Amino acid sequence: MIESLNQAFCALPGVGKKTAQRFVYHLLERDRNGGFELAKALVDAMEHVKHCASCRTLSEKELCNICTNNNRTSTQLCIVETPTDIHAIEQSGAYKGKYFVLSGYLSPIDGIGAAELGLDELEQKLRTQSVEEIILATNATIEGEVTAHYISNMCKQFNIRITRIAHGIPIGGELEYADINTIAHALSGRKDYD
Amino acid sequence: MIESLNQAFCALPGVGKKTAQRFVYHLLERDRNGGFELAKALVDAMEHVKHCASCRTLSEKELCNICTNNNRTSTQLCIVETPTDIHAIEQSGAYKGKYFVLSGYLSPIDGIGAAELGLDELEQKLRTQSVEEIILATNATIEGEVTAHYISNMCKQFNIRITRIAHGIPIGGELEYADINTIAHALSGRKDYD
Ligand SMILES: [Zn+2]
Ligand SMILES: [Zn+2]
Repeated sequence: MIESLNQAFCALPGVGKKTAQRFVYHLLERDRNGGFELAKALVDAMEHVKHCASCRTLSEKELCNICTNNNRTSTQLCIVETPTDIHAIEQSGAYKGKYFVLSGYLSPIDGIGAAELGLDELEQKLRTQSVEEIILATNATIEGEVTAHYISNMCKQFNIRITRIAHGIPIGGELEYADINTIAHALSGRKDYD
Repeated sequence: MIESLNQAFCALPGVGKKTAQRFVYHLLERDRNGGFELAKALVDAMEHVKHCASCRTLSEKELCNICTNNNRTSTQLCIVETPTDIHAIEQSGAYKGKYFVLSGYLSPIDGIGAAELGLDELEQKLRTQSVEEIILATNATIEGEVTAHYISNMCKQFNIRITRIAHGIPIGGELEYADINTIAHALSGRKDYD
């Protein structure tokens, strides 16, 4: 039972045996209530958190708070790889448009093509809604660049401005780890994508 | 729901907001099954893991595997602050006796006195069982030293050898973080406690 719990914690990103053991002993010796609360929160979230029907971010409701916020312009659409990236951009306070969340990045070798990323939905969205600018905010990694390039090509059929956030974000780094000033800078310095 | 799960993870030692968020997104986006398994393992462990009736370590049974192991001598009793410390000593392979787990260390300011530590049980054990040596393996911290000193005084009424593991372990450090060679060295270099 102790060992099973250890192993279950090890499935979390960045958690090794030693860290898992500290979690287990802490809960068992000092905070069993915290253990039960964590279990309950896990089941609640795993069962009820879905994806927003419009932008595909994680959401407890059919449509997320950003998609239903009328104070945000729908003419700008920022494309990110993960919901965490939205969180990072929101903290910078530098963006007031809407988002679209890919399911990661293009990776044909893993069977992740355009359809798996959600690009069909994106295309449909651009066809039916009046989007004026697409901001490509995929990560500054090779995969992120390839994905941005693919989306840019796809969007050329529409009369839309296509931009890429500026590379204030270190090359090879991931958006989620950038500080909010860097993110704000990268957004304001965005340039047309060729 | 996402926020509740974030907060529940933040209750774990060393887990801040950013780490909690990574856990949450990882489970929701990539491993919901892992989330359910962690929840189940948590409930199982919080409900069923008790303390060994003899040595007070965490155990799924009335008596732990070490206490019921007849190949281990009962004449040596190693006193540690936490179950994690047993794990660390066991990995060194340098000890074949039994253990007694305190509930931490003496801390009168937090209301943790001799009774709260389990020293009444220890005294009872020494009265009724034929223990020949007490090895004080509390941490090399001020609190650990004070606790060792207190137990040493308590044991003087019995005809028992009292030893302290050698300070190969860095002063100020905690046993749980020492490497197994250091622990083995500290055990073999133990000296009589004065
Ligand atoms: Zn949405
Ligand atoms: Zn035991």
